[in-house]
Amino acid sequence: MKDEDVSLRPIGVFDSGLGGLTVVRELSAAMPGEDIVYLGDSARVPYGTKSLETIRRFALEDAAFLLRFSPKMIVVACNSATAAAAEVLRACLPVDVVDVIRPSAEEAARHGAGPIGVIGTEATVASGAYERALAELAPGRAVSAVACPLLVPIVEEGRDESDPIVTHVLCDYLRDLQRLRPEVLILGCTHYPLLAGAIGKLMGPGTLLVNSGQAAAREAKRRLAARGLFNARQGPAAVKCFTTDNPRRFAAVARRFGAGRIERVAYVGTDELEAQGLPQRDASGVGTAASGTVYCS
Amino acid sequence: MKDEDVSLRPIGVFDSGLGGLTVVRELSAAMPGEDIVYLGDSARVPYGTKSLETIRRFALEDAAFLLRFSPKMIVVACNSATAAAAEVLRACLPVDVVDVIRPSAEEAARHGAGPIGVIGTEATVASGAYERALAELAPGRAVSAVACPLLVPIVEEGRDESDPIVTHVLCDYLRDLQRLRPEVLILGCTHYPLLAGAIGKLMGPGTLLVNSGQAAAREAKRRLAARGLFNARQGPAAVKCFTTDNPRRFAAVARRFGAGRIERVAYVGTDELEAQGLPQRDASGVGTAASGTVYCS
Repeated sequence: MKDEDVSLRPIGVFDSGLGGLTVVRELSAAMPGEDIVYLGDSARVPYGTKSLETIRRFALEDAAFLLRFSPKMIVVACNSATAAAAEVLRACLPVDVVDVIRPSAEEAARHGAGPIGVIGTEATVASGAYERALAELAPGRAVSAVACPLLVPIVEEGRDESDPIVTHVLCDYLRDLQRLRPEVLILGCTHYPLLAGAIGKLMGPGTLLVNSGQAAAREAKRRLAARGLFNARQGPAAVKCFTTDNPRRFAAVARRFGAGRIERVAYVGTDELEAQGLPQRDASGVGTAASGTVYCS
Repeated sequence: MKDEDVSLRPIGVFDSGLGGLTVVRELSAAMPGEDIVYLGDSARVPYGTKSLETIRRFALEDAAFLLRFSPKMIVVACNSATAAAAEVLRACLPVDVVDVIRPSAEEAARHGAGPIGVIGTEATVASGAYERALAELAPGRAVSAVACPLLVPIVEEGRDESDPIVTHVLCDYLRDLQRLRPEVLILGCTHYPLLAGAIGKLMGPGTLLVNSGQAAAREAKRRLAARGLFNARQGPAAVKCFTTDNPRRFAAVARRFGAGRIERVAYVGTDELEAQGLPQRDASGVGTAASGTVYCS
């Protein structure tokens, strides 16, 4: 296939559920001519409370599904999936992989010289992925990462920033970070941009919020342009979605995430995802790491 | 196999994750001589925010896995799975099935004559399963069901009743039920007994709380005794657990759920659950109901 044809291929995007649609919004804003195929694994959402081994297997299955559409690039629109699987995805997939952690860490490193805060899911924080990236990109700066497990279910429930429960929960999670007064706070989960107003108010004007979806969209555009694969068409491009749970509910809730021009939402079962072969499964050792038995007495 | 052998078989129990361990606790308390095999589908938890079609497929996979241990009975220790799949499980499985909804509704119906409240997951409440059971068992009594999606993640996060966030969230969900002043409130999710103290305080002494796990354990014991399959041995019996996510985390958190004598926790992958045949899959029409495409423009 010639290069001019490759530029017309879609960008594949996947997430554990709906949160990644905030990344689709940023991709569409930055590159209105790019077609997008999105997979939201709503039947197994959330990823962020699960073990890194399980998330890794799910992420490989999601990516393998997107390969059916011959994407020119795959965007991992989920911080938990990035934390668990970015490396193995890069090793296994035959296309360029953009994740949401590295670009956010680069953006944070460019801003100021003071402490950096990170909020994310249990899995993202437990992985230490942001600390590792920032140790390389912003050596010597204090980094403090806080897990906020209730924020994903709060956003998925439809609560917005005017809800007192949202304020109570954010105050609880952000207390230590408020004392740290970071120059930058990375919103290390693609659900969190929907709470950015309330988070910004609590942290104050001295803290810059980094939206991991925005950072990833800029990185995706830069890489496509560098490889001559950018589709400069002015759109409107197509956003096609797949979900592993009910497409009707997905379509109804998707609007809140501002993903724009979604053309259609189709169902694909997790049984189908699990049954397809994984890219280079043997090489990655996936599916064995979480196994074993714990004896309790 | 002779009847005396059947009584020695284990009781199979499954849940979306850890919540069902509160049911194991009640089963062990009521029947200390019964061996239990438990499957917690922690890789796909929660079920309660997903569509009834998806939950139905997962529940059938979970039950099919338990059949490997030749159980004398299967207890569906999850209200969402009961709401979605109790009927199809009864139709498909070759063993007696005890669920958590019918016994709770019976217990509520026996108490008083005033209004009945129900709290549960989105899926349980949306299914109308409690309303249907109570219309038959307690005709004429007002029933009010409220979905409380944040309570499962709050319990799984390890927050307890002393936590102000728990109080804020409970006040928010229970506001309308407090006005209704029900004589009975059914805790229609197996996670909720861990918050029973706080819920009882908010509802006041005029409201009896029904623990769906306790009700199911009594029903299981009654049925085993009626069929001469009750194992009267005084124990200690074995509780063997399987989880679809990390067994180490499962074992660590299981203690909080008070399930007692867990002997070991072993891993079984969701890929293995999805790959096994479903009991009478064709007859149930499972796996097709959630499919289809929604066109958005």
